[in-house]
Amino acid sequence: MSAGRLYGVGLGPGDPELLTVKAVRVIATTPVIAFFAKAGRRGNARTIADRWIPAGAEELPLHYPVTTEIPVSDPAYNRMLARFYAEAAEEIAVKLEAWRDVAILSEGDPLLYGSFMHLYIRLKERFAVTIVPGVSGMAGCWSAAGEAMTWGDDILTVLPGTLPSEVLAKKLAATDAAVIMKIGKNFAKIREVIRDGGYYDRALYVERGTMAGEKIMALKDKADDVAPYFAIILISGQGRRP
Amino acid sequence: MSAGRLYGVGLGPGDPELLTVKAVRVIATTPVIAFFAKAGRRGNARTIADRWIPAGAEELPLHYPVTTEIPVSDPAYNRMLARFYAEAAEEIAVKLEAWRDVAILSEGDPLLYGSFMHLYIRLKERFAVTIVPGVSGMAGCWSAAGEAMTWGDDILTVLPGTLPSEVLAKKLAATDAAVIMKIGKNFAKIREVIRDGGYYDRALYVERGTMAGEKIMALKDKADDVAPYFAIILISGQGRRP
Repeated sequence: MSAGRLYGVGLGPGDPELLTVKAVRVIATTPVIAFFAKAGRRGNARTIADRWIPAGAEELPLHYPVTTEIPVSDPAYNRMLARFYAEAAEEIAVKLEAWRDVAILSEGDPLLYGSFMHLYIRLKERFAVTIVPGVSGMAGCWSAAGEAMTWGDDILTVLPGTLPSEVLAKKLAATDAAVIMKIGKNFAKIREVIRDGGYYDRALYVERGTMAGEKIMALKDKADDVAPYFAIILISGQGRRP
Repeated sequence: MSAGRLYGVGLGPGDPELLTVKAVRVIATTPVIAFFAKAGRRGNARTIADRWIPAGAEELPLHYPVTTEIPVSDPAYNRMLARFYAEAAEEIAVKLEAWRDVAILSEGDPLLYGSFMHLYIRLKERFAVTIVPGVSGMAGCWSAAGEAMTWGDDILTVLPGTLPSEVLAKKLAATDAAVIMKIGKNFAKIREVIRDGGYYDRALYVERGTMAGEKIMALKDKADDVAPYFAIILISGQGRRP
């Protein structure tokens, strides 16, 4: 493992002040800065980290071949993504082999539903890696909402909104607190499950938490069913409160 | 609400470099710094924040009357804690009424199983509050271990190790990824549940993640059943990996 070091750098939920001191230091001192972006876009990660990237840094944008144009269930999606991750990992490996350290910017926390992980598993046996944890997107959302999420012995369950209604309903019934992610087109279905399960009065909707355009409201006050993929729904726990 | 502002400041998992830039700024510019500690101790929160607290700051230690000496189930525990939180909230209210901003240091994230929350619910209707989210203790642990926790549509469940064996077993069977907290005296019980459930090969044990004395090992490699309360057990998800 005599080569450059790979850094997986958590950027936090979106506010550039919510990077850690360590993340800022690693970004400032690592010669190559890699980040995912939709083709033709700068990408949210690059935007969040903007003020912390030195002028002389070599930037390595990794452009997704596809994001939401093809359904995840389509085998073509998997094939395209697998090839993309393999090629991106190889681009990074070339830098590392040339003894240049590489920092991969990762929204939220690198090891919690992070695209970074797809490069990490392809590189971690070949190169030294340091993970810089980040404030998760959901923590940014519940902080922005001022919602105390879990108390005492509360169980917290993080649920992708992509799950079928029956599964979501069952999981909500079995937990004290819940975070529902990956909202987007699943919004109406999720709202129905929450209403039918009796959690409607406790559910909060948060969009772009800690960022410009932040929206926070009681779920039942949301008039339409339109929501971005990265919106979040929070149901806080009711555990022990001396 | 014309008075000082209350800040709930997440300190992250323990490494002082894992505070956010915002947390560092708030600590540096807030005149009163409050923190919980066991009586006679400096406390872990104060220690983590040490390098960021300016010399002139007014420090307000809040000493728990009891931590693990009385079981949580004892009504006396609840009474003592309730009185303590009420008195601590009042001490802070006096500062805020005098137009002095107060920052309450909170290990990990302030709104995720944080003692801060007990003061927050007592003060949030009377004073303006800003929450500064932090890297959670569990994120510090899985980053230190280099363990990618959740993939694709994985469900993540955070379980207090205080739960009975049957409940833990049922919850583990119903999730893709799990974090088990509050280990301490529950260690042997938790290990048994994990072994019996068939997760033993996937489980990691992390103690003092990101701090001096950090220990990371496969759970099955842990020779004894002795673990601190704040140790964590991680079982990562196996979801979609193109």
